[in-house]
Formats: sequence, C-alpha cells, structure tokens
Amino acid sequence: MITVALDAMGGDHGVGVTVPAALAAIETEPDLSLILVGRREDLAAELTRAGGAESARLRIEPASEVVGMDERPAQALRGKKDSSMRVALNLVKQGAAQAAVSAGNTGALMATARFVLKTLPGIDRPAIVTILPTMHNHVHVLDLGANVDCTAEQLMQFAIMGSILVSAVEGKTRPRVGLLNIGEEDIKGNEIVKQTNELLRAGPLNYCGYVEGDEIYTGDMDVIVCDGFVGNVMLKTSEGLARMITHFMRQEFKRNLLTQLAALVALPVLRAFRRRVDPRRYNGATLIGLNGTVIKSHGGADAFAFEHAIFEALAEVRNNVPARIGRELAALTAKGQVA
Amino acid sequence: MITVALDAMGGDHGVGVTVPAALAAIETEPDLSLILVGRREDLAAELTRAGGAESARLRIEPASEVVGMDERPAQALRGKKDSSMRVALNLVKQGAAQAAVSAGNTGALMATARFVLKTLPGIDRPAIVTILPTMHNHVHVLDLGANVDCTAEQLMQFAIMGSILVSAVEGKTRPRVGLLNIGEEDIKGNEIVKQTNELLRAGPLNYCGYVEGDEIYTGDMDVIVCDGFVGNVMLKTSEGLARMITHFMRQEFKRNLLTQLAALVALPVLRAFRRRVDPRRYNGATLIGLNGTVIKSHGGADAFAFEHAIFEALAEVRNNVPARIGRELAALTAKGQVA
Repeated sequence: MITVALDAMGGDHGVGVTVPAALAAIETEPDLSLILVGRREDLAAELTRAGGAESARLRIEPASEVVGMDERPAQALRGKKDSSMRVALNLVKQGAAQAAVSAGNTGALMATARFVLKTLPGIDRPAIVTILPTMHNHVHVLDLGANVDCTAEQLMQFAIMGSILVSAVEGKTRPRVGLLNIGEEDIKGNEIVKQTNELLRAGPLNYCGYVEGDEIYTGDMDVIVCDGFVGNVMLKTSEGLARMITHFMRQEFKRNLLTQLAALVALPVLRAFRRRVDPRRYNGATLIGLNGTVIKSHGGADAFAFEHAIFEALAEVRNNVPARIGRELAALTAKGQVA
Repeated sequence: MITVALDAMGGDHGVGVTVPAALAAIETEPDLSLILVGRREDLAAELTRAGGAESARLRIEPASEVVGMDERPAQALRGKKDSSMRVALNLVKQGAAQAAVSAGNTGALMATARFVLKTLPGIDRPAIVTILPTMHNHVHVLDLGANVDCTAEQLMQFAIMGSILVSAVEGKTRPRVGLLNIGEEDIKGNEIVKQTNELLRAGPLNYCGYVEGDEIYTGDMDVIVCDGFVGNVMLKTSEGLARMITHFMRQEFKRNLLTQLAALVALPVLRAFRRRVDPRRYNGATLIGLNGTVIKSHGGADAFAFEHAIFEALAEVRNNVPARIGRELAALTAKGQVA
C-alpha cells in the first residue's frame, strides 16, 4: 500500500476538485491510500456531496490554514505552520505518507518542501520537471521555474536528476539528454550554457548536445535541461499558443451553419485530437531533488487532471525515485564524475 | 518609388524562392522597385524560368559569393566581401536601396548589417523583432536572438525601439509595452528583469508591467520585451508546437475512411483556420536599431512568405522607421529620459 498526502485545499478550485479526484483515484488504484489534508468540515461536506466517505484508504488529516495562490512564499513558510500544504509535507517527512500532491502556490510549495524535506545530498536546489508530449513520444523538461539564475553545476545536477527520473519511471537505461540553446549567435548560447555543455560532455550521462526550442516538441530527447526562467517562459508560451489555436479553431467551426455542420461531422476526429494533446494528461510536475516525492498540480486543474497528478506521485513512489537519485548521485560523486 | 535590395541567393531555397517572390511583389506594388543581388547567370536563368525579365523596376546587381546557412558570422564578414548579403547591405548604405531583405544566415546578416550600416546613436546593439498573432490581434516581440546576454539598459532600448516601430507602422500613439517575466519565484524574475522593470517604470513609454509567457498569444500588449535567448527559445518552441499540433491533426483525419470523409467535409474550415495562423503571413523579422531597414526572412520561407518579408520592408521604409527611432531617441536623450 502506498500512501499519498493531498493538499486538499490548494489550487483554484480546492476541495471541489481534490475530493472527487481522490475518490476516483482510489477506485482505480487498489494499492493506493490517500490522506486528504485540510479543513475537516469542508472535506467531510465535499465527500458527502461527491457520494464518498472516509475509509481505511481515504482519511482526513485536519489543517486549519490555507496558503493563498498569490501569497508570498516566505510569508506562507513563516506564517502558516498549519496550512494544508505544510501538513501534507509534514506527513511525508514523518513517513506517514510517501508523497505529497498540491495544486497550490508553486513558490510556497517549493519553499515549504525545501524547508520540511530538505534537498538530497549533492543537490543545491530542487527543480521542477514535467513531461511534455512530442511528435513521436514525450520528453521530460527541467527546470520550469524554481531557479531563475542557475550555475552550470546546477544545470548539470538537473540533467542528472532528469536522467535518473526517466530511467526509474520509464525503464530506459541511457536516456538521451539535450541542453536547450539557441543557434542564432556568433558563438551559440550564453556563457553558462557553454560551461554546462562542457560539464555534460565530460560527464557520465548520454548527453546528445544542444537542442533548439522547436526540438522540444519535434525532437527525440528524453530529457531537456534549461534554467527556470527560460523553462517557465517556454511552458507558459506553449499553454498560450495552444489556447489561441483552440480558440481560432472553435471560431472557424462556429462561423456559420455550414461550418457548424462540418464541425458535427468532424467531431469524433476533433475529439480524438483533443484527447491526444489534452494537457490534463500531462498534469503533475515533480519537485525533484528533495528527500521525498512532491508533485505540483496545475492550479487550474480539474478532477481528471488532479487525479493524473496523484498517479504521477504513485509512479514515482513505486519506482523509488528520490532514493534512486540519492544513491546514483552518491555513486557518481564517489567516482569523481560530479562535483 | 521605393527600392529594396534582395539577397537573392540567401535562404534554404535561394533564387527558386526569391525571384518568384520579387516578380509577384512588383506586380502587387506599383511603387516598389527591386534589386536582385547575386550570381547574374543564376538570376537571369531563374527569371526566364519564372516567366519574368529584367526591367526598370527589377534589376540584377551581381555578387559572386554566397554566405552559407551554417557559416560562422565572423567568417562571412571577413571572408566574403562580395556575398549577395553584403552587396545588398552596401546598396542600402550607398542609398541605392532603402532596405535590404535576406533569408540567409541570421548571425551573418546581423554581423554584416552592424558592420555596414552601424547602429543608430544611443543604441548599443540591434535587436530582432517580429510580429506574432494573438488571440485578438497581434504583438511585436523583441529580441528574438541577436543578444543572448542583455543589460537592463539594452532591454530598455529594445522597448523604446519596439514602441516607436508600432507607432510608426500601425499609427498607435501609445503602444502598450510589456516585459516578459515569470511568476513562480519568491520575488518574481531575475535581477536584470527587475532592473529593467524599474527603468521602464521611470521611462516615457506606456509601460504596462510584467507579462508571462502565455500572455504573448492571449494578452493585449503591442510590444513585449525579452532578452534574445529567451525570445529565441520562445519563438522556436512556438514553431515546434505548431508543427506538432498540425501533425497530430493530420494523423487523426487520415486514420481511416470515415475520418478521411470527415476531413473532406471539414476542409474549407480547416483551410480558413490554417490561413489564419499561417506563419508565412508573419514572415519578416526586422533587424531594428540600424541606420537603415533590414528584414530577415525565415530561411525556409517559400515565395509567398518571402514576398511578405518584402512588404514588411516596404511598410517600414514608407513609415521612415529608422529615422523616426533615431529622432525620438535623440529627443528622449535630450530630455534625460533615457541614458
């Protein structure tokens, strides 16, 4: 049995999303046990509303406070010691849960997770990693916003963590690692990217060199590394572009009676297409580099998407990701292959 | 009459694209005169093939060399003084043309343009700016790859240039300017972005604060400023994502006989949609900040897209963009509103 603690109050929709997702997840996964962390009365009410109840595999852990989506991380960390987010992370620290999932404020989650769980030996700062779909498969990209100014050593650590994550969860022995860069300058890229390139060339990973932005979605890497500023802009830009394309497509199909009829005929195809690029299926970014598994769900996630984030937590716990990163990092350090 | 010099040998497809585009452009624009710069025999042959001929409004200027798409900019600058790219830029410098358009190597074009035309007074380095479609209109974004490490002062200069460009070409009096940032960190963004924010707040532009990546396509800015590394990754990522979405859509419609029939019915709608997001309509990035108008076409542009880049050059010459930037910058400097 694997136990996952849910910050049940977090995200734009709170218990209205987390509770139905929890009920669906324990239905699907008999090995899964969930702890709903938050205000008992809110959670009990929502459980009843959703037709569920507390059980051996679904219990409530009370927490009186909620971290606001726009609250400053330092303030949440210092001022809200009984927040649903903090209590969920404490459960992981105490061993009562093996992972925590939150759709709350990313900065607060990162700061609190670092404070409560600490980073693995050899890791300066945790990173945020997620899966993105690609033309032929998918790719793990990190960092997505936890670290705005990275050193080459940190980017190297991200590459190692990403590579171990893909090995552990997907069973790939030598994941292909790319370093995000641009190809438009005299000598490609900036100083830190160039230094990172040297470190990666000399290191133990299956490093495949520079990749440009378009190769995120059309290339064949398993892991792509970048600093958190670039990664965050890349991710958000993708969200915006996808939203714009969907909007235009909808407008064109709604234009007149003829196009509406065409939409009717094309509906099954459009649905199949939507399923394929459905961002909800990719919901659940990992805060990697911590002593424990912490998954960040998109703040606006619906129950389907939040359930997917729970499954991501389950997969990482099953595959023992944090311990494996710790162990392999120690081995690499012993061999002198990383600083 | 406005004269534009075309680097007729540049890009992935060379004369096969530039010559038909030139013929189409002078057909459409009676005020336009073009100079095809490159190997006379290649150009004459392609003109004949395309059913055109030299005329008062379409002449050939010989240039014996071609800059390779992967050639190092410094090498192109020093070693190829008779390249089609260099000769086209020389024509602008000499006043024989008012603008140059090239689909060649971006780095070489930037280096050569800087060397030949020089930057405007008060501009440290030129930037690359392009139009991107948005949900409700469009936006100018810069820099897209000319400057990988920017100071706050340079980003401020980009904001001023972008704002003047939009004023000049679109007639907007107070273009809305946003600064690209991320919202995930304790204190948002990195040091340089924060400094730039201060400069922009104190400056004369209609500065509207930070924007995140998704707002590029869904927001309501007229100008968005970022450093060239971030801008290039953003642009290339968008290209890759659009290609992946198109690929998936095509696959779904090709799946079986039924979906192929649906595609047939939906074809006019899909075509209308494609026209709307057609990247060829947005082809033509401006190298802004130079004493002269230089337009960079996408290397893979077809004749339709390259023709659009020529029209972009025409619009900027008609609206006197470089002189206006120079003048307004001088005025701002005199008033002490920029350094």
